[in-house]
Amino acid sequence: MSSAPVCLDDFEKLARLSLPASVFGYYFSGADAESTLQRNKDAYDSLLIRPRILVDVEKVTTETTILGHKINSPVCVAPTAFHGMANDEAEKATARACASLKTCYTMATYSNTSMEDTYAAAKQKSRKQDPLHWFQLYVEQDREATKQLVQRCERAGYKALVITVDRPRLGRRLADLRHAFKLPKHLSLANFIADETRSGAGAYAGGAIDASLNWKDIEWFKSITKLPIVIKGIFRGEDAKLAVKHGVDGIIVSNHGGRQLDGCPATLEVLPEIVDAVKGSKVEVYVDGGIRKGTDVFKALALGARAVFLGRPIVYGLAYQGEEGVRSVLSLINYEFRLAMALAGCTSTDKITPDYIIPAEEISLAR
Amino acid sequence: MSSAPVCLDDFEKLARLSLPASVFGYYFSGADAESTLQRNKDAYDSLLIRPRILVDVEKVTTETTILGHKINSPVCVAPTAFHGMANDEAEKATARACASLKTCYTMATYSNTSMEDTYAAAKQKSRKQDPLHWFQLYVEQDREATKQLVQRCERAGYKALVITVDRPRLGRRLADLRHAFKLPKHLSLANFIADETRSGAGAYAGGAIDASLNWKDIEWFKSITKLPIVIKGIFRGEDAKLAVKHGVDGIIVSNHGGRQLDGCPATLEVLPEIVDAVKGSKVEVYVDGGIRKGTDVFKALALGARAVFLGRPIVYGLAYQGEEGVRSVLSLINYEFRLAMALAGCTSTDKITPDYIIPAEEISLAR
Amino acid sequence: MSSAPVCLDDFEKLARLSLPASVFGYYFSGADAESTLQRNKDAYDSLLIRPRILVDVEKVTTETTILGHKINSPVCVAPTAFHGMANDEAEKATARACASLKTCYTMATYSNTSMEDTYAAAKQKSRKQDPLHWFQLYVEQDREATKQLVQRCERAGYKALVITVDRPRLGRRLADLRHAFKLPKHLSLANFIADETRSGAGAYAGGAIDASLNWKDIEWFKSITKLPIVIKGIFRGEDAKLAVKHGVDGIIVSNHGGRQLDGCPATLEVLPEIVDAVKGSKVEVYVDGGIRKGTDVFKALALGARAVFLGRPIVYGLAYQGEEGVRSVLSLINYEFRLAMALAGCTSTDKITPDYIIPAEEISLAR
Amino acid sequence: MSSAPVCLDDFEKLARLSLPASVFGYYFSGADAESTLQRNKDAYDSLLIRPRILVDVEKVTTETTILGHKINSPVCVAPTAFHGMANDEAEKATARACASLKTCYTMATYSNTSMEDTYAAAKQKSRKQDPLHWFQLYVEQDREATKQLVQRCERAGYKALVITVDRPRLGRRLADLRHAFKLPKHLSLANFIADETRSGAGAYAGGAIDASLNWKDIEWFKSITKLPIVIKGIFRGEDAKLAVKHGVDGIIVSNHGGRQLDGCPATLEVLPEIVDAVKGSKVEVYVDGGIRKGTDVFKALALGARAVFLGRPIVYGLAYQGEEGVRSVLSLINYEFRLAMALAGCTSTDKITPDYIIPAEEISLAR
Ligand SMILES: Cc1cc2nc3c(=O)[nH]c(=O)nc-3n(C[C@H](O)[C@H](O)[C@H](O)COP(=O)(O)O)c2cc1C
Ligand SMILES: Cc1cc2nc3c(=O)[nH]c(=O)nc-3n(C[C@H](O)[C@H](O)[C@H](O)COP(=O)(O)O)c2cc1C
Ligand SMILES: Cc1cc2nc3c(=O)[nH]c(=O)nc-3n(C[C@H](O)[C@H](O)[C@H](O)COP(=O)(O)O)c2cc1C
Ligand SMILES: Cc1cc2nc3c(=O)[nH]c(=O)nc-3n(C[C@H](O)[C@H](O)[C@H](O)COP(=O)(O)O)c2cc1C
Repeated sequence: MSSAPVCLDDFEKLARLSLPASVFGYYFSGADAESTLQRNKDAYDSLLIRPRILVDVEKVTTETTILGHKINSPVCVAPTAFHGMANDEAEKATARACASLKTCYTMATYSNTSMEDTYAAAKQKSRKQDPLHWFQLYVEQDREATKQLVQRCERAGYKALVITVDRPRLGRRLADLRHAFKLPKHLSLANFIADETRSGAGAYAGGAIDASLNWKDIEWFKSITKLPIVIKGIFRGEDAKLAVKHGVDGIIVSNHGGRQLDGCPATLEVLPEIVDAVKGSKVEVYVDGGIRKGTDVFKALALGARAVFLGRPIVYGLAYQGEEGVRSVLSLINYEFRLAMALAGCTSTDKITPDYIIPAEEISLAR
Repeated sequence: MSSAPVCLDDFEKLARLSLPASVFGYYFSGADAESTLQRNKDAYDSLLIRPRILVDVEKVTTETTILGHKINSPVCVAPTAFHGMANDEAEKATARACASLKTCYTMATYSNTSMEDTYAAAKQKSRKQDPLHWFQLYVEQDREATKQLVQRCERAGYKALVITVDRPRLGRRLADLRHAFKLPKHLSLANFIADETRSGAGAYAGGAIDASLNWKDIEWFKSITKLPIVIKGIFRGEDAKLAVKHGVDGIIVSNHGGRQLDGCPATLEVLPEIVDAVKGSKVEVYVDGGIRKGTDVFKALALGARAVFLGRPIVYGLAYQGEEGVRSVLSLINYEFRLAMALAGCTSTDKITPDYIIPAEEISLAR
Repeated sequence: MSSAPVCLDDFEKLARLSLPASVFGYYFSGADAESTLQRNKDAYDSLLIRPRILVDVEKVTTETTILGHKINSPVCVAPTAFHGMANDEAEKATARACASLKTCYTMATYSNTSMEDTYAAAKQKSRKQDPLHWFQLYVEQDREATKQLVQRCERAGYKALVITVDRPRLGRRLADLRHAFKLPKHLSLANFIADETRSGAGAYAGGAIDASLNWKDIEWFKSITKLPIVIKGIFRGEDAKLAVKHGVDGIIVSNHGGRQLDGCPATLEVLPEIVDAVKGSKVEVYVDGGIRKGTDVFKALALGARAVFLGRPIVYGLAYQGEEGVRSVLSLINYEFRLAMALAGCTSTDKITPDYIIPAEEISLAR
Repeated sequence: MSSAPVCLDDFEKLARLSLPASVFGYYFSGADAESTLQRNKDAYDSLLIRPRILVDVEKVTTETTILGHKINSPVCVAPTAFHGMANDEAEKATARACASLKTCYTMATYSNTSMEDTYAAAKQKSRKQDPLHWFQLYVEQDREATKQLVQRCERAGYKALVITVDRPRLGRRLADLRHAFKLPKHLSLANFIADETRSGAGAYAGGAIDASLNWKDIEWFKSITKLPIVIKGIFRGEDAKLAVKHGVDGIIVSNHGGRQLDGCPATLEVLPEIVDAVKGSKVEVYVDGGIRKGTDVFKALALGARAVFLGRPIVYGLAYQGEEGVRSVLSLINYEFRLAMALAGCTSTDKITPDYIIPAEEISLAR
């Protein structure tokens, strides 16, 4: 029996075996009882696919666009901190894999290689084209510092600003508390290296992140940058409507992979409410959290997501085989997704409509 | 304590013990997370039977007909590939068991004995009568080859063409990927023996199967054969209506035993929708997937199926004791089914109506 | 830690330890997958009690009547075969325990002490009063034999005839099949001792039981006896209405403890339908199956049962400590029931109304 | 990996390791099958939080009042008997921890230090202020004794009388029965020490508690004391309305932590019914049972509770590290609660409305 990974969950198992417990714990864990972490995944299993048959599926394409940029597959990479703990090439390896597969890479504020270096590495990989990079931003109390970060993003070629709004305070991840987790000393917050006090684990406590962040700040961002703004962490229709009103360009429906407030609904469960709230606007809706299979991607798109973002599986792939491992993860789920389309009778992503899915509760005979 | 099998699940346990892991894995596994595989079975447990009492059940008969042919019991044999891995007599053993019990045997395209040999073996067994054989067809890109296969079916005495429509691409069965499963070298795809390149594991990758298959092809089939056409793999009312419109004779509600698209509803869950869609037509509806008990047969018939088809239990019986083992499996479930009828107060299959069943969710007090 | 039983489930554990596996298997098992066996118990856990407070519960009485006879508690004893395998005093021990606690004992047709001896033993125990005995009847093909049995019942002092209608054929209990269970040679079917061919395990196969039994036979019974008639095994409102129409006196809602048709609803789940169907008549409704706690008794009464019957716990008590063990079982559940009444704010059984209960599904927030 | 507790469940694990089995059994166990014990906790997991984002949560306060007294957090301490088995300082340690954190301590009738000593210890701790102490009362058959107890409460500085109404008889806690649990000889019921016959385990059997307690007695209490009266153990809207009618000041929705009648709904499940029933009155509603996390507090408040009370976690903290351990428990859940508020977008307790929560069943896709 071969031990090569044949599904995304296999990468998690391999990472658990190879990484130090405290590092795996950091990557894996959710907040408190990890019920939202689990719920994110379970929600996908509760939605069923109703395939059409005798459709010509000789040619199936997964291509789509986000904010006007073409990507080969609607499976993108979510911002996750500290890739340096998984592989020495850190974010550069991840970004290269994305570039070679022509999908969107979102860099985290708390990265171990700088936005400039990472972009350069990716660009070298995808010789002819600009790689599609977005930048995830934690807004700091020191707005001047934040402003400088945004301006560097623009200069560096990043195509959108992803503002994370579900982390005014750090969630309690019990594994990290038990391990007294800290960023290993040899790694730095590379996007801040100019500032000595920021290097190493210092900033992780996150005191710097501004708990007073509110809609007025979004207006301020619009005044200081031309980059499209994506809000990450919206969870209710009311807030999605406010996002439209404040002129944002995209929304990532996210609960931070269950790492912040434990006990909220799964992202898939609130996706329809958000999609509904932005109807009529140009705001694009994406979703992350718990996506592990090609059929999960299919279901998210059927409920109205334009694309999905992967968090943990990417770092597991990175821990497994660096750039090549990230590529394996993305290629595998892309393959599964294309297969799901064929077996469901859909030849392109725009054909994946709500008609193809049904909540288990509507069809189940059980209790 | 005797180890003789007393329920169909026992045959699975025995097969797991006796077969090589890769072969058992091939027979047993479903696609991806195997959630549909499990759901197929669970659905039966979610439907409850409401027996009538003080009905004279001295005489109970399980006889019925499918497409006009009399069978002793509505429990038939679904097409499953590669019986040669379970027993040296391969499909011949299976067909003989069916013949002796007077039920319908469906030969798979990918069989290890040819349709002609298998039919002859079965005919010899059931001395006086023609055995009831159907032929399951995978439609190839090379339509001429397919046409020849159909014509051989007619000549060989097969009574219906079962066209499988849920396999435009091969589902991902993780066990097969882990074992790098291949058809053992000493076995061939016996229905293609004229063609050297087809022998052995070559064709299994299934590249030959035509992903462009669509309703127009069904019309073509009707133009090249007089055999009744049964579509296997229909899953939605809309498609059932199209089937009626295109003049098919029967529908097998099937998700390929959970081996193709993981995450669809159980077949039992969609059965009512299909039965409803064909109402008023002459199309007969059958169901397969997860049937393991006499009460499962009862429930399927109560929801409107004319007959049911067994997949895995048959190969497990075959692995256990060849022809005799298949007969044991069929006899046991037939006995259980007849007993269920008696205990529910039904003396013949046409009396098994929806009135005898209730979804657990309608009666349960729980959550 | 003491090992003395403190709840009815403890008696099951003790019986499992002390009895031969085949005997425990016979007592314990249900039909097929034992899903109904489990469901009978689970149903009680799905119904919740809503206590009233600040009710004076200084005095609580559990007394009631069935068919006009006073009993100290609505917890009675269901007919179960072969008490001789659990204790040498067999049915005599069970009946003595019931007599001393002043509750109803139902003798099974297939008992190891005769109805006459058992009654005599019980009468001796309860010096001043006639014990309350009912007789459970399996109707045989030989109606003359059945008639003689009924007449012996009348003469012997039995107060009602409980006709079991859910056993036209014997259910498949897998444990019995695996153990090739037979009544041990030293025991006989004591109610048939005149007939040599009946002794020992002979009759257990049950060929003698008449599968043609129907409502006409109920009329015949009414013509040959003055004893009240209780139908055991009714499961649907339609049949309860027929029972009323045919002039029966009582109904035991039962699925034979899950030993006949596996996959029917729990008895508690169908109880309301039966209670509703007989409304306006004088027919009393009882229930058995899965009752293991004082709160279960409370719930059954709240749903309209006049009394409940215990099957397995009685034989477990018998296996544990003979007559004393049966008394322990009954005393314990009576104590629990009285406590439940006090804690719920009910001082007598007629005050236990539907208002005190609520299905979990109506109040639960979960899924 | 550090073994310091990072969530309230950790304190339970630590207590299980350090306490004698019979003592841990006494603290931990619920009545009978402990289904209500479990249900109390599960109910919280079935209610989901829907966070708002981009709310300025720089400043979050958990302060509130109960019956007019200011507390630093709505997490109070429920009455639990026999703290002396967990720590030599017994109730004094618990009360000191409450005083230092400025929350309400409810003393149990069955305490191992007297109400006077305990109050004095707490007062010394919170130098400048009176500690907020309530007294839980079991009403005895001997009303004169009860009256004296009430008068001592008033004199001693207790601010409310909590009358427990769900214990007319002692619930069956199987662990206690198996361990033949008794209060260790060296401990006494310190609130009764004047009376020799009460010392030690004597009174625990609880014969003294009056099963005839009813609403008339509540009127009597109002005639003998000026202390506000809180009824503990109300479970239905009807009774809550009676409470309003009889002029009580507060209600603790409680099922005694699942220790009395097993099989009732979770307290969280009935909370809305009670809140609804008292609407328009000045009666404050609190809830206890199964609260283990900051998000549980949030959910209870969102459903209308003014404050929550902790039972078991407090004794576990006490067993772990005495006064310091109780403080750790309270500080931790307070921290979690404040964090939950920030992450949900609420800056003060009055902003925690039903709008922030949703039952899982309303949003789930599963079954
Ligand atoms: C190890 C790890 C670190 C993360 N770091 C960040 C981060 O720095 N900024 C951010 O907005 N989200 C962060 N996230 C959340 C992810 O962007 C994403 O929302 C989440 O991982 C999606 O769920 P999934 O892991 O189940 O795919 C992190 C997630 C993980 C697992
Ligand atoms: C080992 C195996 C091989 C199969 N091969 C075929 C096949 O060649 N053609 C086909 O139409 N269906 C095939 N099936 C699907 C079966 O016809 C049937 O739909 C399924 O097995 C029913 O579910 P069950 O196994 O739970 O009874 C196969 C199933 C199994 C288990
Ligand atoms: C060992 C055993 C033997 C039984 N024998 C009979 C019988 O001879 N006649 C009958 O009507 N019911 C019989 N029953 C069914 C019981 O009367 C009753 O319906 C059932 O046991 C109730 O369920 P419980 O065991 O969960 O309490 C038997 C049940 C058991 C467990
Ligand atoms: C060990 C223990 C002793 C208790 N003693 C009393 C008591 O003497 N009086 C009372 O009203 N409630 C008593 N209770 C019930 C608590 O006041 C409270 O209702 C319950 O513990 C809340 O549930 P929780 O333990 O899940 O937080 C006791 C509970 C426990 C666990």
